[in-house]
Amino acid sequence: MEFPISLEDIIAAHQRIAPYIHRTPILTSESVDKIAGCELYFKCENFQKVGAFKARGGVNAVLSLPEDQRKNGVVTHSSGNHAQAIALAAKMAGIPAYIVMPKTAPEVKRKAVAGYGAQITLCEPTQQSREENAARIQKETGATFISPYNDYSVITGQASCAKELLEDQPDLDIIIAPVGGGGLMAGTLLSAHYINNRIDVYAGEPEGAKDTYLSMQAGEITKVDEPSSIADGLLASMGDKNFEIIKPLVKEVFLVTDEEIVEAMRLIWERLKIIIEPSCAVPVAALLKNKEVFAGKKVGVILTGGNVDLAKLPF
Amino acid sequence: MEFPISLEDIIAAHQRIAPYIHRTPILTSESVDKIAGCELYFKCENFQKVGAFKARGGVNAVLSLPEDQRKNGVVTHSSGNHAQAIALAAKMAGIPAYIVMPKTAPEVKRKAVAGYGAQITLCEPTQQSREENAARIQKETGATFISPYNDYSVITGQASCAKELLEDQPDLDIIIAPVGGGGLMAGTLLSAHYINNRIDVYAGEPEGAKDTYLSMQAGEITKVDEPSSIADGLLASMGDKNFEIIKPLVKEVFLVTDEEIVEAMRLIWERLKIIIEPSCAVPVAALLKNKEVFAGKKVGVILTGGNVDLAKLPF
Repeated sequence: MEFPISLEDIIAAHQRIAPYIHRTPILTSESVDKIAGCELYFKCENFQKVGAFKARGGVNAVLSLPEDQRKNGVVTHSSGNHAQAIALAAKMAGIPAYIVMPKTAPEVKRKAVAGYGAQITLCEPTQQSREENAARIQKETGATFISPYNDYSVITGQASCAKELLEDQPDLDIIIAPVGGGGLMAGTLLSAHYINNRIDVYAGEPEGAKDTYLSMQAGEITKVDEPSSIADGLLASMGDKNFEIIKPLVKEVFLVTDEEIVEAMRLIWERLKIIIEPSCAVPVAALLKNKEVFAGKKVGVILTGGNVDLAKLPF
Repeated sequence: MEFPISLEDIIAAHQRIAPYIHRTPILTSESVDKIAGCELYFKCENFQKVGAFKARGGVNAVLSLPEDQRKNGVVTHSSGNHAQAIALAAKMAGIPAYIVMPKTAPEVKRKAVAGYGAQITLCEPTQQSREENAARIQKETGATFISPYNDYSVITGQASCAKELLEDQPDLDIIIAPVGGGGLMAGTLLSAHYINNRIDVYAGEPEGAKDTYLSMQAGEITKVDEPSSIADGLLASMGDKNFEIIKPLVKEVFLVTDEEIVEAMRLIWERLKIIIEPSCAVPVAALLKNKEVFAGKKVGVILTGGNVDLAKLPF
C-alpha cells in the first residue's frame, strides 16, 4: 500500500526539527513491569519542549512553510499542547501566531501559550467553535492555518517520536499510544511500518471520545457528539488524512474509562516519579486493562505530555 | 583536618551498593536556569530505589554488618524514606527489619515499607517516642539499630550521591542539598572535600526545623523544640557524628519558609515534569531566595526524593 508520507519524508522532518526539540529519554520501571506483566519502555515526551510531543509536528509544520507564506504568520486551534507547539515554532521563526483555545483549556496551558508571545482567542469547547474562529482569523490576517493533526507535515513531525523510540529500542514487539485527532497515531504507525513492520501498534482512546473506535468499526470516519473525558487532549475528532493511514495499519483501538485513566496516571506519578497529563495516561490504562495482549512482550509506550493544572488534580 | 570517613571508604561503599541502587540521571532545564540566574544540574534521587537517596545509606549500613550481627535483623526509626531503605536492604539480605514510624508519616511511605515485608510500629511524631520504641524493639529482638543519619556507614553510603554527581559534572562551582539529621549533608561535604575542595557546599533547611542553622551559629549542637515543617523528611535533629563533619565544611545554611518550599516544589513539578517531595524542594527554595550567591555559577542540586502522598498535595 502507498502512503502519502514516505520514510524519507520522516527522516527529513526529523533532521529539520532536531535542533529545536529534545531527544527525549526512555524510562523503565521494574515495579510497573511487575504490575503490567510485560516489559515497558516509556518514551517520555512529557520532557519534550512545551511539555508534549506536539512540539515535533508544530515545529515541522512551521519550518516546512515556504518563506512567502510564512510572513503573515500561522493560526491554529488547540486545547493546549499543539497551541504551545505552534506558538514556540512561530517564535523561533520570528512570525506571528494566532491561537484559538477552548475556554475550558487548563490555565497552565493558556499561560504557556501567552508566554511565547502568541495572540490567544478563547472559544467554546466545540469543534465547530474552534474551526469557525480559526477560519475568521485566517481570513482577517492572511495567516496559514496549521491543523493540530489533519496535516501531513504535522503527522510527519509526530512520526519522529516513534522513530527515536525504535532507534533506542529496536526489538520492541508492540507500540501503544493514545489517539485523539490522529496525528501522533498516524505518525507512529508510519514509523513502525517503515522501520519494522512486525511491530503491532495499538491505540488507547477514552470511552467518552471514542470516535476512532467507532470509525474503525464502521470503516469510515464516525463522529461522537459532545465528546467528553478527563483526557482533554483527546477530544478532537479523527481527521481524514489521519484515518487513511490509521485504518489499514492500527492493530486495535482499546477504550478506557476516566476512572481507569486516573488510576493509570496515579500509577505513573507514584512509581516513575514523573508528571504526565490525563491524555498521556490513556495507553497505560489500556495496557493495564488488556494484560493478556501484552503479556511478556516488549512494549513501547509513548507518554505524550506532562502539562497538568496542579490546582485541578484528579487525586 | 582528619575525618572519620576517608575517600577510600566512600569508594568502597559505592562499589558495595552499586549493584543494588540506581545511578540516577542529572536533569537540566533552560527555563528554570533562566528563573534562577545560574546553571543548575539536578541529581535526581527521586528516581532512586525506594524513591529517595536514603537507599544508598540504608543498603550500605545493612551490607556492612558482620554476618553474625545481621541474623537478628535491623531496627530503625524514620518518617519514611530511611524506613523504606532499611526495609529494602533487609529484604535483599534476607533478614528481618523492624521499623518505627511516626504516625504522621505519609500513607504512601507506610504502604511501601509494609510492601518490603518489614514490621512497622507506629509512634508519636517526636524524637523521644521514636528512640524509645526503637530501643525497646532492639532489646526484645536483638536486632541492630541503624540510625537514619547518625551512623558512619549511613553517611558513607549517602556520600556516593555527590560522588556520582561530580563524576558526571566535574566542574561544578557549588553543590546544595537539604539538611535534616545531617547524613546526606555530611556525606555530600566529604565527597566534595575529597574530590574537589574548591566547591562550596550549601545547606537548605526549613525555618521550622532550623537546628543546623542554630547549631552552626552556636558552634555546638542546638536543638529545636517541636520542629515543624511541610518538609517532613527534615524534622530530625542533627546527629553528633554528622555535626563533626558539617561544622568545619559547610559554607552556609540557608533557611526557607514552608511557603517558599511549596513554591519551589511547584516550579520543579511544572518545569521539570518530575515529582519531588517537599523536603526535596528545600535546596531549590534556598537558591531561589539567595540568587546573588549562585548568580552565573554551575550548581549541583541534590533532589533527594519523590515520595509524596498524592491525596495530600499542598497545591
